[in-house]
Amino acid sequence: MTIDIKAAAQRLAGHALRTPLLNAPLLDAAAGRRIFVKAECLQKTGSFKYRGARSAVSALDPETRARGVIAFSSGNHAQGVALAAREMGAPAVIIMPADAPAMKIRNTEAYGAEVVLYDRANEDRDAIGARLSEERGLTLIKPFDNEQVISGQGTTGLEIAQQAAEAGVTQADVLVCCGGGGLTSGIALALEAEAPGLTARPVEPEGFDDVARSLATGAIQTNNRMSGSICDAIVTPRPGDLTFPILKRLCGPGLAVPDDDALRAMAMAFTHLKIVVEPGGAVALAAALWHHEDSRDVIVVCSGGNVDADVFRGALERFA
Amino acid sequence: MTIDIKAAAQRLAGHALRTPLLNAPLLDAAAGRRIFVKAECLQKTGSFKYRGARSAVSALDPETRARGVIAFSSGNHAQGVALAAREMGAPAVIIMPADAPAMKIRNTEAYGAEVVLYDRANEDRDAIGARLSEERGLTLIKPFDNEQVISGQGTTGLEIAQQAAEAGVTQADVLVCCGGGGLTSGIALALEAEAPGLTARPVEPEGFDDVARSLATGAIQTNNRMSGSICDAIVTPRPGDLTFPILKRLCGPGLAVPDDDALRAMAMAFTHLKIVVEPGGAVALAAALWHHEDSRDVIVVCSGGNVDADVFRGALERFA
Repeated sequence: MTIDIKAAAQRLAGHALRTPLLNAPLLDAAAGRRIFVKAECLQKTGSFKYRGARSAVSALDPETRARGVIAFSSGNHAQGVALAAREMGAPAVIIMPADAPAMKIRNTEAYGAEVVLYDRANEDRDAIGARLSEERGLTLIKPFDNEQVISGQGTTGLEIAQQAAEAGVTQADVLVCCGGGGLTSGIALALEAEAPGLTARPVEPEGFDDVARSLATGAIQTNNRMSGSICDAIVTPRPGDLTFPILKRLCGPGLAVPDDDALRAMAMAFTHLKIVVEPGGAVALAAALWHHEDSRDVIVVCSGGNVDADVFRGALERFA
Repeated sequence: MTIDIKAAAQRLAGHALRTPLLNAPLLDAAAGRRIFVKAECLQKTGSFKYRGARSAVSALDPETRARGVIAFSSGNHAQGVALAAREMGAPAVIIMPADAPAMKIRNTEAYGAEVVLYDRANEDRDAIGARLSEERGLTLIKPFDNEQVISGQGTTGLEIAQQAAEAGVTQADVLVCCGGGGLTSGIALALEAEAPGLTARPVEPEGFDDVARSLATGAIQTNNRMSGSICDAIVTPRPGDLTFPILKRLCGPGLAVPDDDALRAMAMAFTHLKIVVEPGGAVALAAALWHHEDSRDVIVVCSGGNVDADVFRGALERFA
């Protein structure tokens, strides 16, 4: 297997949504420059994760696929894999921590997956996964360190390249919400091939900027902790072994934003763009508005919208 | 002048957004059938009104346009005309009631229009408009009874025809939030030409169903009152003289939904589609979910997203 974004795009055609590149004159006025927003929160399952999941599941040979797939996830990857598997008639087992948000567990089950809950404190999820995989012959779909997943996420970048050209934007930073780097590395590869004047840059929550520090030092760095940010969707221990070399070769410096600015950006997206963005999906917009030193047009990926209603209401109450 | 939707589409190319036709498997599951949502709340200025406004302003001869345009509106048409005029270098005067939502007044000014406020109780807006038009040679852009406006709104229908075909939907009702009928009639004409298996049907708030009653009786009916619904964007006194004959010839029966179901539909759009919809823009989705007797796939237009944060929060608190 190798990373092949165009092949993934062919497999996703008619399944993944070609999400719009939004622009709002009053948001531009607030920012003092043009901001273009790739609204991946509108993607099926509410996040870009469906692209990588569908790419990976559809790349399996039919016999392997028919035995089923397995994934570890407490959130958006879970839903993406569950739906992609159901669409292709493959059984899916998703191992989720018992304390994952109830809504995400419910949704994953609603997409038809078998959800296996484990106790973070007392059980070893890898052991549970290994046992189930062996018993049933399931194929593990990793959330980012998987070439077909990176290829699928990269289809976002192919669309950005086309849509930016249509908007007349050829030189710009592309700010991407970044956890393990699957989306950022996929977009970076697509831009390298299709829009070399566009530069991907990862954006993370403050205090969880492992990718930014890894890029700055040239070697993989880890986060000291794994909780304490509302941007749970993009809090990961470290960049991936597959994704980091791509990020290092192609991306500009990373950016980090405080949690409150993610909430503030959610309110701006509500007011000006009419989209629902989750905290981890809003950090790139927050960076463009308040933490980016560039004065050119900027492109932003709003990567997901799976936010609980009370968190969203709180963001509006404080900042809209 | 005549209604020419394809000509309007050419004038709008590169300016209006081709909004996505969204679909969410879990929304389908809740509805027991497939629901496709044309997300016109993502359009520039947050509603479809920009299409008609840009169509009308761009159809003026340059000399007339340079003198400026004028519109009466308390809401979405105001913002559409203001932005379209600014983009084309035309002065715009918008006559708004002094008690219009502050946010809509602010936005209209932010798009560069000159806003003239009047007192609904004591001033005659038509007299104010006539005086300004005469003094400055302004051209009136009516909100729906204008052939170029209908043509512009009809471009929504051209896109629906294409997107429905791509989704394999050829026989379906297309439910459209309806005030004066500009959007509904434009879509109906586009579907007649491009997708004859799709039938437009107007959706209104309960108690303000002038279009449904007009269709049922075959002659124009009026509403008894002009306030008392949260769906202010689509409360109009009666269907238009230009729009009604088109609606009568092409549309299926009208539907009406209670205000609470509009709020409930806004919460469903938040949860499953990740879009922000205003009450008047959500009645078609509400109809599809709870007031539509059909079991086939259905297409819905979510026509606008300009809702105050406190109204949106209230909808989530009650129904999400």
